Amino acid sequence: LDEYMQDKSFVLQLGVWGLRGVTRVILANNPLSGALILVALYWASPWQGLLGTLGILVSTLTAVIMGQDSAEVSGGLHGFNGMLVSLLIGVFSSTGDWYWWLLLPVCLGSATCVFLFSGLSSVLDRWDLPVAVFPFNIIIILYLLCTGQDNPYFPHHAATPPGALELNGTKLIATEVIRGIPLGVGQIFACGALGPSLLILGAVLLYSPLLAVHALLGSAIGTLAGLSMAVRHDSLYLGLSGFNGALGCMAIGGLFFAISWKTHLLAIASAFLSAYADIALSNLLGTVGLPACSWAATLTATLMLLLTGSLAAYRIPIGQVRAP
Amino acid sequence: LDEYMQDKSFVLQLGVWGLRGVTRVILANNPLSGALILVALYWASPWQGLLGTLGILVSTLTAVIMGQDSAEVSGGLHGFNGMLVSLLIGVFSSTGDWYWWLLLPVCLGSATCVFLFSGLSSVLDRWDLPVAVFPFNIIIILYLLCTGQDNPYFPHHAATPPGALELNGTKLIATEVIRGIPLGVGQIFACGALGPSLLILGAVLLYSPLLAVHALLGSAIGTLAGLSMAVRHDSLYLGLSGFNGALGCMAIGGLFFAISWKTHLLAIASAFLSAYADIALSNLLGTVGLPACSWAATLTATLMLLLTGSLAAYRIPIGQVRAP
Amino acid sequence: LDEYMQDKSFVLQLGVWGLRGVTRVILANNPLSGALILVALYWASPWQGLLGTLGILVSTLTAVIMGQDSAEVSGGLHGFNGMLVSLLIGVFSSTGDWYWWLLLPVCLGSATCVFLFSGLSSVLDRWDLPVAVFPFNIIIILYLLCTGQDNPYFPHHAATPPGALELNGTKLIATEVIRGIPLGVGQIFACGALGPSLLILGAVLLYSPLLAVHALLGSAIGTLAGLSMAVRHDSLYLGLSGFNGALGCMAIGGLFFAISWKTHLLAIASAFLSAYADIALSNLLGTVGLPACSWAATLTATLMLLLTGSLAAYRIPIGQVRAP
Repeated sequence: LDEYMQDKSFVLQLGVWGLRGVTRVILANNPLSGALILVALYWASPWQGLLGTLGILVSTLTAVIMGQDSAEVSGGLHGFNGMLVSLLIGVFSSTGDWYWWLLLPVCLGSATCVFLFSGLSSVLDRWDLPVAVFPFNIIIILYLLCTGQDNPYFPHHAATPPGALELNGTKLIATEVIRGIPLGVGQIFACGALGPSLLILGAVLLYSPLLAVHALLGSAIGTLAGLSMAVRHDSLYLGLSGFNGALGCMAIGGLFFAISWKTHLLAIASAFLSAYADIALSNLLGTVGLPACSWAATLTATLMLLLTGSLAAYRIPIGQVRAP
Repeated sequence: LDEYMQDKSFVLQLGVWGLRGVTRVILANNPLSGALILVALYWASPWQGLLGTLGILVSTLTAVIMGQDSAEVSGGLHGFNGMLVSLLIGVFSSTGDWYWWLLLPVCLGSATCVFLFSGLSSVLDRWDLPVAVFPFNIIIILYLLCTGQDNPYFPHHAATPPGALELNGTKLIATEVIRGIPLGVGQIFACGALGPSLLILGAVLLYSPLLAVHALLGSAIGTLAGLSMAVRHDSLYLGLSGFNGALGCMAIGGLFFAISWKTHLLAIASAFLSAYADIALSNLLGTVGLPACSWAATLTATLMLLLTGSLAAYRIPIGQVRAP
Repeated sequence: LDEYMQDKSFVLQLGVWGLRGVTRVILANNPLSGALILVALYWASPWQGLLGTLGILVSTLTAVIMGQDSAEVSGGLHGFNGMLVSLLIGVFSSTGDWYWWLLLPVCLGSATCVFLFSGLSSVLDRWDLPVAVFPFNIIIILYLLCTGQDNPYFPHHAATPPGALELNGTKLIATEVIRGIPLGVGQIFACGALGPSLLILGAVLLYSPLLAVHALLGSAIGTLAGLSMAVRHDSLYLGLSGFNGALGCMAIGGLFFAISWKTHLLAIASAFLSAYADIALSNLLGTVGLPACSWAATLTATLMLLLTGSLAAYRIPIGQVRAP
C-alpha cells in the first residue's frame, strides 16, 4: 500500500474514484452527485455514513492491489458493491451504532466484492451484460446467513416478509404511502429518512433529469404493486416496496436503452416486474429471515438487456453507456 | 393492436398460432392436435379452458407487439408458456371457478412469459438449447410466492410435498395406481380427469405415435419411481408422480434425439431421473408450500441435450427438430 | 459389458482408473495415493470402504458404456463424483452399516453422476472451468431431498446447521480443536477418525508436498473461521469446519495456479471465503435438514478461476494442470 501512498495525488484520485463509485449505486457516474449522496448519508446517520465510506475505500483499494483493470477502477466500478454491503451490514446489525467490531466484517465483505465482481464479469461479458449489484446481493445474503440472528459477536435483525399478516389491522394512511415514494429512492442506499432521500434524489437530478424522473416513476409503480398485493403497511411507508421498482425503471429508462416511447413503456414494464418479483423473493427469503435486497431489480434489468426482437435495437452496448 | 385487426385473416392466423402453441406444451406441433387438447380442457373444466385460451392469446399477442421473430410466433413458441401459467394460476387459486379478478394475474403472467422466453433464449442459444417451459416454471413460482396463501385478493392452496406423512395409513389400491398412468399425461395440462386425459393422449397419438408411447412409458416410470420412494397415495392416484417422467421421456425419446435403441434407453434413464428429481424438488419446495411444476423434467431434458460422448451424435439440432 | 470383459487386462485397467479417481477427490492424480486412501477408508469403516469402491466402479463403468472421452475415463475423471455420492449416502443413512438395500441408490446415484459430469462439462468448457465436484453436490442433495428423513426404505439423519445453539454451553477444548485440523482433511472423504485422516494426508504428501501443506493450512483457516463465527463445538472437533477451507486452499495453492507468493495469498483468501461460505450455506440448507457438502469450496474455486486482472496470468489452463 505504501508504494502507492508515496504519490500524494493518489489519495485525491482515490477520493474521486470513491465518489464515482457512490453514484454507480444509483446508475449515475459523477463525483459531484457522489459528494451530495455522501452528505445525505452522513446526515441520515453518521455511523452509516462512516461504514459506507469505509466500504467504498476498502473495495476500491482491494481492486487496485489485485491489479484490476485501471479504467474500471477509476470509473468507480469496484466501489459501489462494497459500499452497499457495508451499509446493509450496518442496517441489519442489532448491536446499535458505533459497535466497532462491525468494521471487521465490513472490511472483509467489501474486499470480497471485488473477487465476485471480477469473477462474474468473466461470465457475464459473454452476453455483454453488466455485473451490476450481483456481488453485493450475494455477499450480504452470505453474511447474514453466516452470522445468523443469535450470533454472539455479530447478531442481526431478521427481515420481515412483506406478505406477513399484521396483527392489528389499521387503516392505510394515504399521505404516508405517498411519502414512501421519495423514500423508495433513499432506500436504494438503505436510508429511510425523508430529508436525505430528497437530497439523494437531487443528486440524481443533477446528473440526469431523465434518470430522476424514472426513479420517482419506478418508486411509484413499486408502491402501486405493493398495494395490489396488500403488503404490510410498514413496507409501503418506509419505501421498501418502491426501491426495486425505482432501480428497475432507471436501468431501462435512463441508462441501458436509448430513450423513446417504446423504451419508456419497457421501463414501466420493468418497474412492475421488478416490484412484483421483489415481493415474491422477499416472501421466499423472509421464511428464513433474509431480506431480498435488490435481487429482483438486478435480475429484471439483466433479463431486459437479454431481450431479442425489435426492442434489442434500442439497447446501448455496455462499453458506450453514457449519461443521457 | 387495431392496425393488425384490420387484416381480417389475422384473427384466423392467431388462432392457428395459438393451437400450435397448445401442442407445444406436449412437445408436438400440429393445430389439429391443439384443437383436440383444447376440447379436452373445456370438457374437464370450462373455466380452466377459458383461462388457458386467454393465456395463449395474450402471450402470443404480446410477442407480436414486442416484435419477436415471426417464425417463432407463427410456430406457437410464444404461446405455450403463457397457457401453462394461466392454467396453473387457475388450479392453485382457492377462490373457486369464475372468480373474474383472476384474469388480471393471468394476463400479466402470460405477457411476462414472452419477456422471459426472449431473454432466456439469448442465453440458451449459446448451447443450442431450447427455452422449453423455463418461463412458465419461473413465473408460476413467482406468482405463488408473490400472493402467498392468505392474500386477500388472490389466495391459493399450498402444495403438499409428496414425502409428507399420511395420517391414516390406508392400503395402496393397484387399479387406482394404474389409472394414475394416463392421468399423468393429462397432468401436463394440470388436468386430473380420466376422459380428458385420454383425449389429450389421443391428440399426441394423432401427431406422432412414437411420442404417445413415450408419454405413457414415462408416466409409468414416474409412477414406479414414486412407489419406490413411498410417496403419498394421492400423488400416485392423481398422476402427479407421472407427468414429469412423461415429459422427460417424450423430450428424449420422441423429439430431440434420433430414435434408436440407445436413445430409447436414454429416454428411460431420463424418465427415471426426471421422476426422482421431481420428488426431490417437490419435497424441497413443499417446505414453503410451493409446487415443483415441471422443473425436474425441464432440467433433466436440458441436461440430456448437453451430453457429450457417443450419444451426442444422435442429437438433432434445435432448428431441425421435426415430428418423427 | 461382456465385450469389454473379454479383454483380461480391462479389469486391471479399470482398477487403475478407479484408483486415479479416488485421488481426484483430493485434487491429486496418482494410483498409489489412491490405494493408500482406499486403505484408509476401509480402516475407518469397511462398509464405507465398500460403498466407495462400488461407487467409483459403477460410475467409471457407466462412463465407459456411455462412450465418454477415453482420456477422461482413464484419468479417473468419471470416478470421483460417484465415489463421494456413495460415501455420503452411507454416512447419512440412519439404518446402520451393512444395510444392503442401500446399494440400490448408491449404484443409481453413481451412474447419474456421469450424466451430470458430461452435461455440465459442455457448459463449463466455455470458460475453461473444471466440472469438479458439482455433480456430487447436486446428486447428494437430490438424494437426501428425495428420500426425506422418515422414508420407510432409505431413512437418513438430518444435518445440524453449524449455527445451531447448543443447550449446555460447555467450554471449548483447545486440543480437540487442534485435533480437528487433520480431521478436516479426512472429512473430504467423509471420514471422521484421526488415524485414517492422517493416512489420507500422507497419500496427498506422497503426491505433492505443496498440496499437503495447503490442505493443512486450509483446514486450519477453516477452523479459525468457524471459531470467529462461534459455530457448534462438534463442527470444530469433527473437522467439519475445516474441510471446505482445505479444498478451497488446495485448489488454488496447489493445482490450478502456478505457485508464487501472490497465488499463495490468493489460496489463503480462497480458504477463508470457502470456510465462511460453507458456514452460510450450512445454515441455509440446515433449515431443511440438508448438509452443504462441498458447495462452498467448489463455488469459491470456480470463482477464483474466473478472476480477471493481474492474477489471471498465473492461472494454468485446465488441459495443462499437472502435479506441482
